[in-house]
Amino acid sequence: MDFKKEFGEKIAVINKELESLISEMENRNLREAMLHYPKAGGKRFRPIFTMLVADAVGKSGMKALPFGVALEMVHNFTLIHDDVMDNDDTRRGMKTVHVAYGIPAAILAGDALFAKAFAVVGDMDVDPEKRSRLASLLAKSVLLLAEGQQMDMDFEKSSEVKADDYLRMIERKTAVLMSAAAQGGAIVGGAELPLQESMFEFGRLMGLGFQIWDDVLGLRADEKRLGKPVGSDIRNGKKTLIVIYALETLDAGRRGRLSQILGKAAASKEEVEEAIGILDSAGAIDRAERIALEMISKAKTLLDDLPEGEDRQRLKDLTDFMIRREW
Amino acid sequence: MDFKKEFGEKIAVINKELESLISEMENRNLREAMLHYPKAGGKRFRPIFTMLVADAVGKSGMKALPFGVALEMVHNFTLIHDDVMDNDDTRRGMKTVHVAYGIPAAILAGDALFAKAFAVVGDMDVDPEKRSRLASLLAKSVLLLAEGQQMDMDFEKSSEVKADDYLRMIERKTAVLMSAAAQGGAIVGGAELPLQESMFEFGRLMGLGFQIWDDVLGLRADEKRLGKPVGSDIRNGKKTLIVIYALETLDAGRRGRLSQILGKAAASKEEVEEAIGILDSAGAIDRAERIALEMISKAKTLLDDLPEGEDRQRLKDLTDFMIRREW
Repeated sequence: MDFKKEFGEKIAVINKELESLISEMENRNLREAMLHYPKAGGKRFRPIFTMLVADAVGKSGMKALPFGVALEMVHNFTLIHDDVMDNDDTRRGMKTVHVAYGIPAAILAGDALFAKAFAVVGDMDVDPEKRSRLASLLAKSVLLLAEGQQMDMDFEKSSEVKADDYLRMIERKTAVLMSAAAQGGAIVGGAELPLQESMFEFGRLMGLGFQIWDDVLGLRADEKRLGKPVGSDIRNGKKTLIVIYALETLDAGRRGRLSQILGKAAASKEEVEEAIGILDSAGAIDRAERIALEMISKAKTLLDDLPEGEDRQRLKDLTDFMIRREW
Repeated sequence: MDFKKEFGEKIAVINKELESLISEMENRNLREAMLHYPKAGGKRFRPIFTMLVADAVGKSGMKALPFGVALEMVHNFTLIHDDVMDNDDTRRGMKTVHVAYGIPAAILAGDALFAKAFAVVGDMDVDPEKRSRLASLLAKSVLLLAEGQQMDMDFEKSSEVKADDYLRMIERKTAVLMSAAAQGGAIVGGAELPLQESMFEFGRLMGLGFQIWDDVLGLRADEKRLGKPVGSDIRNGKKTLIVIYALETLDAGRRGRLSQILGKAAASKEEVEEAIGILDSAGAIDRAERIALEMISKAKTLLDDLPEGEDRQRLKDLTDFMIRREW
């Protein structure tokens, strides 16, 4: 699939709506901090999924656009706040919001994007029942996002994180907005509850698979394609599924060496490569890759609950695209 | 009016609901940071106003409770984030959330309180049309809160803040949640739009009067009653209405001296007292006090749009109480 060719127009529509809604803010400083990430572009997966599902269910992709844009606002709000919490200086090669505008402005820009998302849903041209459901879905998603972020922070201080804990964490931190994207599209399209639930589950599996795949890429892709240093998760001591699997199976010697490098902010390139080699030798990277592929495959079968047609096929193609080897 | 006697039971109901809803969070660390301010108590003015207006309009105070609790969550979320932004270590004699739990936990606890507020509104037992209106009112209120906080931060760097700018700022930063409280109660009670708008305006004037009064108290009350150092606004260089009035009217000498002390974090007690003396000699404190009284008085006349009765009288008494001399 040629992503740009397939979705370029949709992305342009989403970007226009996103930027024009944020531009309604009256304070220039606030507005600029809010626009910092959205203006840098992005794949807009969440709104695209929302619109495609709404189209597949009830040909109502354009009606669902504001909900997709609201999700994109929430996504950007969490990026801004997470970057402050994680003390990250760069994101995809650009300055993070708090580095460019200061921590107070970054906190506030995140809050305002979050509030704007709910204002956008409140102005949607759908019946009040749907509007209220969409607002609840959004609220509950952000609650789970916060739980996931707190788990992630807790894990950094914990020496014992199990694979199940990690999966529960990324289910909250990453998958939940994909679930909301797909279910939200189904709500706008007029789907009954069972189909709404299938779409939620589709988003969950797709989001999990996507995150695990992203962790794999973070060790295997090259720096230019990643837009961040290879192995930054290792220097940050992130307990990804890969690390957890490796710590479970490695002998004491290699486990000890891996633990020395994990979380060492000043680790040299050679040390990071050594750590990646240890993870690879434990079969942990391959194992995570297999799991990601399985989840994506299960997610795709759930799409068969949608009415057959062009939109469903595009959803399947896009789901495959989420775990392609190059970005 | 004996506030405790009059509203003690209502406050107990509000506190129970507030704490029980926050306690639904699954992560203990997150939950505790979210509960830090709510557990410390408070006057709960916003939920009380919501419930009283809903009672006055349609005897639906208890139905409106969740909206009041949602406003209290939003209020607490903004306190947490504002304390991080303003780098404040204490609030009403206790550690601020970021001092007690760290900046990342404080940012996240604020976000989660914000999200919970919308989840609570989404679960309200009112028809979807009202639910959707309440969610929109909440979202638009938080957008204005963010505009107000940004204006406040901008003012700290600006040498030219006019009285109108200040009033626009506190209209957004303080009054907006009072407006939302009163209008939200009217919506739940089933008021038509004109009465909803009267209640919004009531909340705006009452919130403005309350904030200006609070600035006056911040210079005149004693430290124990304030729960914060007298004149902390002076050390922080806050451009309150009082300071703005004084800078407009003072001669160059006293204006210069005032400017030297304003924003001097390490100002001695004597210097702060000197600054207060200069503000007083300019008549600025008295002038602000008069304006606060006028606003409260105008707010009270708007309450006459409500059906006559006990609830309306309690609203009037409570409005008077907002600007009493002692807390």
